[in-house]
Amino acid sequence: MSAPTPSQQSRVPGRIMSGEMAEQPAVLRRILEEGAPAIRETAERIAARNPRFVLLTARGTSDNAALYAKYLLEVLLGKPCGLTSMSTTTAYEAKADLTDCLVITVSQSGGSPDLVASTKAAREAGAVTLAVTNNADSPLAAVSEFHIDVLAGPEKALPATKTYTAELLALYLFVEGMRGGDGSETAKALPELAEAVLARQDEVKALAGRYRFAERMVITSRGYGYPTAKEAALKLMETSYIPALSYSGADLLHGPLAMVDNISPVIAVVTDGKGGDALQPVLDRLLDRGADLVVVGPQRQVEAASAGFVLPTEGVAEEVQPILEILPLQMLAYEVTIARGQDPDAPRALAKVTETK
Amino acid sequence: MSAPTPSQQSRVPGRIMSGEMAEQPAVLRRILEEGAPAIRETAERIAARNPRFVLLTARGTSDNAALYAKYLLEVLLGKPCGLTSMSTTTAYEAKADLTDCLVITVSQSGGSPDLVASTKAAREAGAVTLAVTNNADSPLAAVSEFHIDVLAGPEKALPATKTYTAELLALYLFVEGMRGGDGSETAKALPELAEAVLARQDEVKALAGRYRFAERMVITSRGYGYPTAKEAALKLMETSYIPALSYSGADLLHGPLAMVDNISPVIAVVTDGKGGDALQPVLDRLLDRGADLVVVGPQRQVEAASAGFVLPTEGVAEEVQPILEILPLQMLAYEVTIARGQDPDAPRALAKVTETK
Repeated sequence: MSAPTPSQQSRVPGRIMSGEMAEQPAVLRRILEEGAPAIRETAERIAARNPRFVLLTARGTSDNAALYAKYLLEVLLGKPCGLTSMSTTTAYEAKADLTDCLVITVSQSGGSPDLVASTKAAREAGAVTLAVTNNADSPLAAVSEFHIDVLAGPEKALPATKTYTAELLALYLFVEGMRGGDGSETAKALPELAEAVLARQDEVKALAGRYRFAERMVITSRGYGYPTAKEAALKLMETSYIPALSYSGADLLHGPLAMVDNISPVIAVVTDGKGGDALQPVLDRLLDRGADLVVVGPQRQVEAASAGFVLPTEGVAEEVQPILEILPLQMLAYEVTIARGQDPDAPRALAKVTETK
Repeated sequence: MSAPTPSQQSRVPGRIMSGEMAEQPAVLRRILEEGAPAIRETAERIAARNPRFVLLTARGTSDNAALYAKYLLEVLLGKPCGLTSMSTTTAYEAKADLTDCLVITVSQSGGSPDLVASTKAAREAGAVTLAVTNNADSPLAAVSEFHIDVLAGPEKALPATKTYTAELLALYLFVEGMRGGDGSETAKALPELAEAVLARQDEVKALAGRYRFAERMVITSRGYGYPTAKEAALKLMETSYIPALSYSGADLLHGPLAMVDNISPVIAVVTDGKGGDALQPVLDRLLDRGADLVVVGPQRQVEAASAGFVLPTEGVAEEVQPILEILPLQMLAYEVTIARGQDPDAPRALAKVTETK
């Protein structure tokens, strides 16, 4: 009897996505055991070039990983950073002087023509270029001066899961390496903790029930948790099609709060640290308004909320908590989609490599 | 008989917001006639400092104006830019070296404590600081080395309208001034064109009918129109509470497209120029999928769509089109809100100056 082909496998709804989610602890372990030395060496070589500004370029899920890197670069290295508006290069052919700039392009496939073009243009404009991809043979890796392989193995499901957490860990190790540190020590507990989180599928299934008929959702966070909020919103939208709006807690108070009431459930991603502390007034205001508030975060904030998922944060540095906190939200997107009778592996209308130009 | 007090005025739903929308041509004219010389002088003084990198800081509506400035700075000046993640300064106390950086903070009120704190920190870190506000006496103007007054007059409605277009025009004149040009010539037709657009309220009212029962909306654009898409989504959310999701056309293809079908109406903001050209494949794909597509843009693209609002773009440079293209979308937010029996002047739960810290 031959093994099932990918198309046979995909007949079980969500089987490909759930298989890839389950691989995450192993991928994190592989990066720490096999990838870390090369990442550190790349970081040291780039640090020696002394970039003063960092630009990050990515799309979709990888854009959320890039945003995480932006927080790391600003907080840990004090480097001014920007996320690229890619059309300024690809549509408007802007000619920037990128001397002293590091341009980091993050892409699972390394195959999007616009990312390849903008990276090539950045290199020609004087930037140090680094590609962070899951494919060392990709065109993006080829045009970049430096490359980091996130070692996640082939990703088949359309909603990216294991490549996201792999990108986060690789970017964390890179930024730590830039300042001469070794992030492996801080990150070494993550594979085991990720396993423990992923084993709690029944808890997530119970949470998913409250969103089965939701017509909209708001996801909020601050600081290091904000990229998680954006990625959770993207995951929910591309699997379940629920319009999920993500806001930093501060932006939420600037307008979108008008949309939050007892029919707009809110998920808050609360890091255990300064970002979570800064979010507290927003959580208080949401609870005052009677919002349905689900917290993914530390025990205390979960207990004050309507419901939640307690993350293991004790002894876990705030800056690596995002690698764990997305896991229950990936599982939530999966479970809500299954509960709604849809197939998380096969979102409508999506292709794995998006060929925007 | 005494004039009605603001609280009496506000008993007519939307009266304050519609009054301020109607002031926009006069505000644009005031900036061109009275504000332009001071803006140009500020631009020249800052250009003489030769900043190499620009950081933009803002929240809410002003954040969308800042994003517009980012496109201008990248395309017209070739300066690498970033939007600040404010919590890195206010929550994490990141210490950046901002030598050679220009930090532009955009805020209608100039009163948000977090913006004041982050601008003060940027100045101490070596940045050239510029505040763009509607209040020359504000704390933000006081802590910044340079200040541009957008001269919009007091704004009372919670949804910002005239301060947004005023910020756009002031930022445009500033960026043009940075490269030694005088944007007044390019912008001089805008007040009259804005008047003509605002006079077409009946067309917008007819469009509003299709969204009266909408449960969600997607708004997309590329290039210079992308800040308009984000601002239109914010305006719709904070007045009508419809969850309106904004995406750049390229990002839309990376996941959220799964959410677009015949029950998710799409509004596309199409500039007449390179941004609109780059959006064309996205428009084609949306029409292929049978999406309900409303276009705000040139005649030709409106005709190919389900419906739309034709903008006067002939002879209007692409980079100033955003100052016109938001107008029908402000009117749309207003009309949809009235049609749903709500009051655009009084969104739930919002304060005009948001005191996040």
